[in-house]
Order: sequence, then C-alpha cells, then structure tokens
Amino acid sequence: MMRIGFQRVARLVHHKALPRNPHLLPGLHQASAFGSSTDSLVARFCPENTDLKDYALPNASWNPDMLSLYQEFLEKTKSDRWIKLPSFKSNREHIRGLKLPSGLVAASDKQDWRIFTRCIQLEGQGYEYVIFFHPSEKKSVCLFQPGPYLEGAPGFAHGGSLAAMMDETFSKTAYLAGEGLFTLSLNIRFKNLIPVGSLAVLDIQVEKIEDQKLYMSCIAQSRDKQTVYAKSSGVFLQLQLEEEPFQQQ
Amino acid sequence: MMRIGFQRVARLVHHKALPRNPHLLPGLHQASAFGSSTDSLVARFCPENTDLKDYALPNASWNPDMLSLYQEFLEKTKSDRWIKLPSFKSNREHIRGLKLPSGLVAASDKQDWRIFTRCIQLEGQGYEYVIFFHPSEKKSVCLFQPGPYLEGAPGFAHGGSLAAMMDETFSKTAYLAGEGLFTLSLNIRFKNLIPVGSLAVLDIQVEKIEDQKLYMSCIAQSRDKQTVYAKSSGVFLQLQLEEEPFQQQ
Repeated sequence: MMRIGFQRVARLVHHKALPRNPHLLPGLHQASAFGSSTDSLVARFCPENTDLKDYALPNASWNPDMLSLYQEFLEKTKSDRWIKLPSFKSNREHIRGLKLPSGLVAASDKQDWRIFTRCIQLEGQGYEYVIFFHPSEKKSVCLFQPGPYLEGAPGFAHGGSLAAMMDETFSKTAYLAGEGLFTLSLNIRFKNLIPVGSLAVLDIQVEKIEDQKLYMSCIAQSRDKQTVYAKSSGVFLQLQLEEEPFQQQ
Repeated sequence: MMRIGFQRVARLVHHKALPRNPHLLPGLHQASAFGSSTDSLVARFCPENTDLKDYALPNASWNPDMLSLYQEFLEKTKSDRWIKLPSFKSNREHIRGLKLPSGLVAASDKQDWRIFTRCIQLEGQGYEYVIFFHPSEKKSVCLFQPGPYLEGAPGFAHGGSLAAMMDETFSKTAYLAGEGLFTLSLNIRFKNLIPVGSLAVLDIQVEKIEDQKLYMSCIAQSRDKQTVYAKSSGVFLQLQLEEEPFQQQ
C-alpha cells in the first residue's frame, strides 16, 4: 500500500535526481526538469517500429467530422511539426524500460491491464480518440467521440467521461512537454452536454512550467466552435521515471 | 445537435415550471426547487420491485475491506436511515417515465446504452462501487474499488476514473438531495494514487443549496483514513425532469 503523497515523493526524487544528473544533455528543452529533451521523450513515447496495436487509428465507427479532422491533422504532421501520438492498451507500453519513482509501487496479481481511456475495446461503443501534439508550441489537440457506453444523461456523454478524457490528454501533453507525471489538480466548468456519437475537439495548451509543476488549460468544443462543452485547467507534477533494472526476478 | 447552455435551459425551465407548480406538495423538502420531496425522489429512484439488474451488489471480485464496509452500511440501512442506492445499466432505467427538459434532446440510432461507470461488465475489471445515501443529512458514501481496466500510472487507478466516480456520486447525491441534474463544475485536488484493486471510500456532503445550485464536497480516502487520495468540490444545477408522454410514436 502506497502511503506517500505526490509532493513528498517529488521532493525525495528531486533531491536524489539532481546530483545524478549534474550535466545537462545537449539540446535540453527549457521545459525539462530533469534533462530529457522533448524530442527524446517523444521518440521514446512514439516508437516508430512496434508491433503494439495503436488504438488511435480510424475505424468504421468514426463519424465524418472526426475522420476529416483527423486527416487534416495528419497532413499537418508532414509539414507543421504536429505529431500523432500512438495510443497503446496500457501506459506500461508507452514507458517500456522505465518505471515509477521508488516509493510508488503497487503490488498486484492482476494481469490484463488497460489504460482507463482504452478500457472498452468494442469499436465506437466507448472512447474513440486521437491526440496530436505540437512539441515547440507545447499544445495538443484531442479529437474525442464518446460512444453509448460513456453515457450520463440519456443520449449524452457522462461529465466524468469528459473529465477523464481531459485528464488523459493533459497527462500525455504534460509528460511530453516536460515530464509531467501526476495530476495535482483538475478544475472543470461544464457548459453544454456532448451528444453521444458526435465529435468534441479538445484544445490543450501548456500555460507555464514553474516550481516542478506544469499548468495547462483546455477548451472542449464542437468542430465549428459554436458550442463550448467545457473549459478546464490542470496542474501536473514533474517527476522523472526511473530506469527499470535490465532483468527482474 | 444541442446548442443551448445549461444555464439558459435552467432559466427557461424554471420560468415555465413555476406557474405549473403553484401548489407545493405536502412534505415538501427544503432542498427541492420544484416541489418534489426527497422521499418521493428516492422512492422513484430506488424501485423496490424491479427486474432490472442491480450492479451495486457484492461479487467475487470485492476485496475484504469493500465487503465488510458494505455489510456495515447495509446494517445502517435498517436503523439509521441510510439507503443503499441500486445501480442500473443506464440512467434511463433510474428515471423511467421521465425525460430531460425540452431543448436537451439528443437524436441517436444507438441501442446499447450504458452509464459510464458501468461501462465494463466483467466483474472486478472495471468499476466496482456502491453508493449509500442519507436523505436527512444530505450526504453519501461511495465504496469504490477500481479494477485493472481503470489504470493510469502502472498499478494505480487513472485520475480520470476517480474524477468520473466523484462526478457520478455527486450526481446521484445531487438528484436525490434536491433535483440536481447537471454538473456545472468539478474541482479536484489529487493527493495520493489509489492502488488498483484496493478500496477508496468517498464521503460526499451537500454543503448548501442556493440559486438553483447544489454545492457539494468530497473526500476520497482509505478505509482507515490514513491516506487521502483526493478532495473535490462539485456544483450541480437543479433542473426538473419532465413527464414522458405515455405513449411515444
């Protein structure tokens, strides 16, 4: 059982990390607290050659809005430095070879892990989403199409499903923009309900990085920006993942 | 497509509702904006005779902590006015015979609807939870055991899964305590990660009801209260459901 708060782990890890990383890596990105450049974080996070299934690819359930905006952003990845983030079944697959800082270990006999936002594997029934990230501008766009298993009020996405989608998009953005690892706070103001099966576009921006924290904002709206679904802010704690021992018993 | 904000619907409905309900019902509860007593809301929400499956019942995946605290609260339902809330597959089944206010309608050809927090039906893999509600004290307790499909950081529940659990518990509490229907805001401060498979106890309190809004607070912690997982506040908009026409074409 883990009984040690984020902030305490952060202090421990930070103190430990500093002497271990006295030399800053070449090309150090201003955002990094620990010496990893955004490029190296992206390279690790988005492996080019992998046999892992990427869930952030179009399928037959995507509505025309989702599909055409996806194609539009895909075009931008060719010229405009946008990166399409792959989305694997579990965060374990994104951070292969790394592990949470010491003190944050959960013992478990469970086997089949899934990242929450990929918990439903039936196409179109649960979360359909894809995240694009812009490293130099420290911003992301998430195309989100909630399915009928994400219902709250009849016919509309549950507020909690949007909260989770925001947290997940913040999380990936925070990690890539500056090793933001844990949500410290999430504040959401809901404006309109998202009809199940329609597209919500989440625009995320890193506002500042200060005192080992990333401050981000998000607006979720319809593609034509005529309907704002919600606005939110999130604060993430920067914390460095540790190298996994090469061979574990 | 619904392009009308919550607040606007609230004003429309409120103005329309007032002349329609000039006579307050006997036993009117102070909390109600529209004349429904908490007792009548609870009676509708928790039908005694139903063939609907209740997902808030123990199963083999519940850990000993969850099971024993469930039994403890179940005892309290006999003497202490606590009510165990049933949890059906969709909110549609909780509000049978009622519908969202006019202006909040989503057209869809989908069939298999699930409330988000019951989206995974494999026992123990997703959300396991049960909510107890205390009408006169306007408070709730939610016993929440996240499964491995709710993962965020390896071995721990995704922050978004806790956010959704809080939103859902706020939502049920808000409806029963005073016809709170929509989340207006949700603010969460995360303190510690919840290990997958362990029990988190959410204590929810309605703090005040003012200007057609319910203000609630929540603390999520381990059973022994030694570890606080998160604290949150939520504001819900009071809005009356409408009678569903007896026969629909």
